[in-house]
Amino acid sequence: MFDRWLADRNDCFESSGIRKVFDLAAAMKDPINLSIGQPHFDVPLEIQDACIEAIRGGKNAYSQTQGIGPLRQRLADQIRDRFPHQQRDVLITSGTSGGLVLSMLALVNPGDEVIFFDPYFVMYPALVRLAGGVPVVIDTYPDFRINLQRVADTITSRTKLVLVNSPANPTGVTASEQELRELAELCRERGVVLVSDEIYSHFQYDDPFVSPASFNDETVVIDGFSKSHAMTGWRVGYIHGPPPLIAAMAKMQQFTFVCAPQPAQWGALAAVDIDLQRHVDDYRRKRDLVVAGLRDHYELSRPTGAFYAFPQVPWGTADSFVRRAIENRLLIIPGNIFSGRDSHFRISYAADDETLHRGLEVLRRLAH
Amino acid sequence: MFDRWLADRNDCFESSGIRKVFDLAAAMKDPINLSIGQPHFDVPLEIQDACIEAIRGGKNAYSQTQGIGPLRQRLADQIRDRFPHQQRDVLITSGTSGGLVLSMLALVNPGDEVIFFDPYFVMYPALVRLAGGVPVVIDTYPDFRINLQRVADTITSRTKLVLVNSPANPTGVTASEQELRELAELCRERGVVLVSDEIYSHFQYDDPFVSPASFNDETVVIDGFSKSHAMTGWRVGYIHGPPPLIAAMAKMQQFTFVCAPQPAQWGALAAVDIDLQRHVDDYRRKRDLVVAGLRDHYELSRPTGAFYAFPQVPWGTADSFVRRAIENRLLIIPGNIFSGRDSHFRISYAADDETLHRGLEVLRRLAH
Repeated sequence: MFDRWLADRNDCFESSGIRKVFDLAAAMKDPINLSIGQPHFDVPLEIQDACIEAIRGGKNAYSQTQGIGPLRQRLADQIRDRFPHQQRDVLITSGTSGGLVLSMLALVNPGDEVIFFDPYFVMYPALVRLAGGVPVVIDTYPDFRINLQRVADTITSRTKLVLVNSPANPTGVTASEQELRELAELCRERGVVLVSDEIYSHFQYDDPFVSPASFNDETVVIDGFSKSHAMTGWRVGYIHGPPPLIAAMAKMQQFTFVCAPQPAQWGALAAVDIDLQRHVDDYRRKRDLVVAGLRDHYELSRPTGAFYAFPQVPWGTADSFVRRAIENRLLIIPGNIFSGRDSHFRISYAADDETLHRGLEVLRRLAH
Repeated sequence: MFDRWLADRNDCFESSGIRKVFDLAAAMKDPINLSIGQPHFDVPLEIQDACIEAIRGGKNAYSQTQGIGPLRQRLADQIRDRFPHQQRDVLITSGTSGGLVLSMLALVNPGDEVIFFDPYFVMYPALVRLAGGVPVVIDTYPDFRINLQRVADTITSRTKLVLVNSPANPTGVTASEQELRELAELCRERGVVLVSDEIYSHFQYDDPFVSPASFNDETVVIDGFSKSHAMTGWRVGYIHGPPPLIAAMAKMQQFTFVCAPQPAQWGALAAVDIDLQRHVDDYRRKRDLVVAGLRDHYELSRPTGAFYAFPQVPWGTADSFVRRAIENRLLIIPGNIFSGRDSHFRISYAADDETLHRGLEVLRRLAH
């Protein structure tokens, strides 16, 4: 009887398979958990202190829709340094997800096509459909690189935007500067919005991070503190781009998210000054461990960013392989969560070394 | 050039007039501010302590989509006590606004009619339109009471839901038990969802609070901690109702809000045990001050809840009257923000007594 009350758009969402693995994990004794998409360190103390100072100082009410002034100013200064010849506004959002929701709702009309790359972050198809858009995926197997010609061939008169994520979840692969430059220029030429999800920008191990916004000032950039500063539960992200687009998203935020949590925004202001090098170095070392540990047993595109690896399963489907891994108490995520294919699986190496070594051992055992 | 990129749904939102008054306030020296829609006391210390303990204790990551277990359990127990014969699930949301967004998106299809009462909370028409619904308002001037016959006559085969808010923003008027009972029964008979926005339930001055869910177990209830515990910037609310509806909203939350801020949820758990009587008594006294101070000068429906009064302007339009008030450094909100009419204005008495007395004095002066 309640079914007839539910709006059709509920069909946009399937309960995420990641959550199913999390539920399994909660029921399991001493799992080897390589499924978690967030840092394994805690929020740095300086950030905790700043948030607590805000709470004690009575900064507990709604902030301005756009975010607290000092954080916006600080980020605006950073953005101006990185993109000196561009006019960009910044909006503080409720996490990177908040930025994704606002950009899809603000930009995508029913019927508009949105291009992104397979494998993709789980939210992308759901949010495109929430806005009434049509997800158009470009397969990037086996090396997860952007093939510009395929993008050019996929853009039609119905294409509204291209959504790119580098470093990428779930592959850990980073697009090259040339790939991003060409993609950015193509979008500008074809009059298509480019939205760049840069949530993993801090975790980049071999080359400096490059944003496609450097080559196309119409690019909308989504970034945040959740992944870099272990603040996933604090819900602070930001979005920057051309002022008219950011203004529309701010207006929409006023009637939906209202504002990012105020005390957490003061924490984020402290986060801007935190040096993450130690954590980045640690994750680079873990990346090397994973690559060395799996190289002789799995097909694996070398991850260069984020904290994920995305190996091919050695036998069966990803679903059956992951089921076997879970029987061995190893929690990993099957590729079909992130992809039209079911041939790979995601490892998160945001874990302590002992867990990582145990997990790699199980994986080596399961390979044969 | 960016205009062509913006989706049509941006037209659902107009920058809220309340924000314009806030911007004026920010520019003004020593304003008499009776425009603020949140308590004038700070978050109680026990709540601050619980949030800070969570931060220090490493509870900084994503929570479960549905919210942290202990808070859900605590609220579920409360809800079971209040509605003993009903099966209701609870979902922790990003503030009451988060609950409103999820319920509109989960329930309203394009073209569905949504009935609510004029004057209304500013978000209602915007969120109905965001979901593609058609706002259908029922005028309740001059006494702001629910006329059941008018609701019955307004329900059509296209009506999906009725949205009720008691105690109400902006009028401060509370629907009687009989009004709510009849409305609840009408909605059940006509097969229409009833959504009850109960964010001001703690601030009820003359009679005990009554929820329409007591008379219709299909009712969806939106509640939160923002207004009662001065936690507007913490973004924690909740929604409870029939399990299939709450399940759909939880799935939608997973792909949009993700979760309410985790440390703030631990604060909210402490909030459940806080006795607010002192603050409620204080606001009742302020309500009496407002009524006594304006009675001989303004048409005013006696406010019985929330912390608002909604007097009729003595001359001109609300817009012109409010402009005159602002010239006298008094910040109030014109009724056209909340209404199809422009004949009343909103006072918030969530202010210290001195501010309140100064404001009432200006209002008495402006009346003649």
